[in-house]
Amino acid sequence: MIDELKNKNNASDPPKAVVSRMSLYLRELEQLLSSGKKTISSTKLARLLGITDAQVRKDFAYFGQFGYPGIGYRCHELAEEIKRIMGTNRIWPVVLVGCGNLGRALLGHDGFHSKGFRIMSAFDVDPSIVGEKIDEIEVRHLDDLDKKFCQKHDIHMAILAVPASAAESVADHLTKAGISGILNFAPVTLNFPKSVSIAGVDLAIELEQLSFAVVKQIGKQ
Amino acid sequence: MIDELKNKNNASDPPKAVVSRMSLYLRELEQLLSSGKKTISSTKLARLLGITDAQVRKDFAYFGQFGYPGIGYRCHELAEEIKRIMGTNRIWPVVLVGCGNLGRALLGHDGFHSKGFRIMSAFDVDPSIVGEKIDEIEVRHLDDLDKKFCQKHDIHMAILAVPASAAESVADHLTKAGISGILNFAPVTLNFPKSVSIAGVDLAIELEQLSFAVVKQIGKQ
Repeated sequence: MIDELKNKNNASDPPKAVVSRMSLYLRELEQLLSSGKKTISSTKLARLLGITDAQVRKDFAYFGQFGYPGIGYRCHELAEEIKRIMGTNRIWPVVLVGCGNLGRALLGHDGFHSKGFRIMSAFDVDPSIVGEKIDEIEVRHLDDLDKKFCQKHDIHMAILAVPASAAESVADHLTKAGISGILNFAPVTLNFPKSVSIAGVDLAIELEQLSFAVVKQIGKQ
Repeated sequence: MIDELKNKNNASDPPKAVVSRMSLYLRELEQLLSSGKKTISSTKLARLLGITDAQVRKDFAYFGQFGYPGIGYRCHELAEEIKRIMGTNRIWPVVLVGCGNLGRALLGHDGFHSKGFRIMSAFDVDPSIVGEKIDEIEVRHLDDLDKKFCQKHDIHMAILAVPASAAESVADHLTKAGISGILNFAPVTLNFPKSVSIAGVDLAIELEQLSFAVVKQIGKQ
């Protein structure tokens, strides 16, 4: 199956939307597993995501062949395969840059570890914050976050929680230190070379989804 | 077109995933508009989301008929239609509950207003925080957030930024005050009657997407 994956990956990279759906499949599979379900058909999995079963099969075909004729997908096995595909079948050490309110909230956030991420170090430039201990983690000066540090601690990803005005220059610092993935919380679009992946967190998108449900609920538009 | 929408809505509610894709279509359309594009075909829109054009047409068919033969979709018009569908063609006043690090970060977040949301009031129960002014907003005691307040200020949605241990009881308080949509940042699943919509923010999902890109980048898995 691993060989198939390699071939598939070489043949054609999956579109971004397919990769997004991998996360959604994984969340559904984890829910199914926690409610004791062992297998699921592509039709039922499709219904959970509101897409066609042909789309589900097409999505997985980018990475290999995971279904069993007459059974469908084995939930545990498919969840593990998706984690392997996403690279979250391990714990990634991650650095946090920017220890203002949002940074502190993220440092105390419980939800990262179970998904494969551990914030191992935090950085800032404010002399009144550098040296402070937040949730057992000592805040270091951004200057300490260099290529040597990233290599030593196997750091490839950073969470950026700095003000919008500082985001571009800090992101530039991070790429020079060898970081190849940045999760950007600053409400600004960062444009960097293709060798750096930047995911922006759009907090408003969830409110928009809520708005749809609320409009239906209160029956006015 | 509005009559068509009503009929469609009565006939069958769109699946959650279709509603999610409405947000994604809207983001793509806003990008297209900002780069000066006026129209887009269903095929091209499908490609941006990594789905089939049949799926795009099926998604929109839940809400009406928005395409033009030989033209495709008019970007501005379709974006406005989606905003209307999502209920974000207006500004929603929203309350924030929980003024710890995350709450303060959200109060200062720039990204809500342009998407149709304005945090108009903030609440907490901590006597050392109640009365404090954060970003021009005075923190009030949660007890003040009752049915009367919500009716007076036309509040239907709340952002919940309290610790996981307090989330359930605060959400209960909110529903009693007449709130019908809760955006939950606490890493805990809230189960409430169907009359209340709860969206959980899963900050780890974006890191997972980043992980996929980084794995590809650094070429080890």
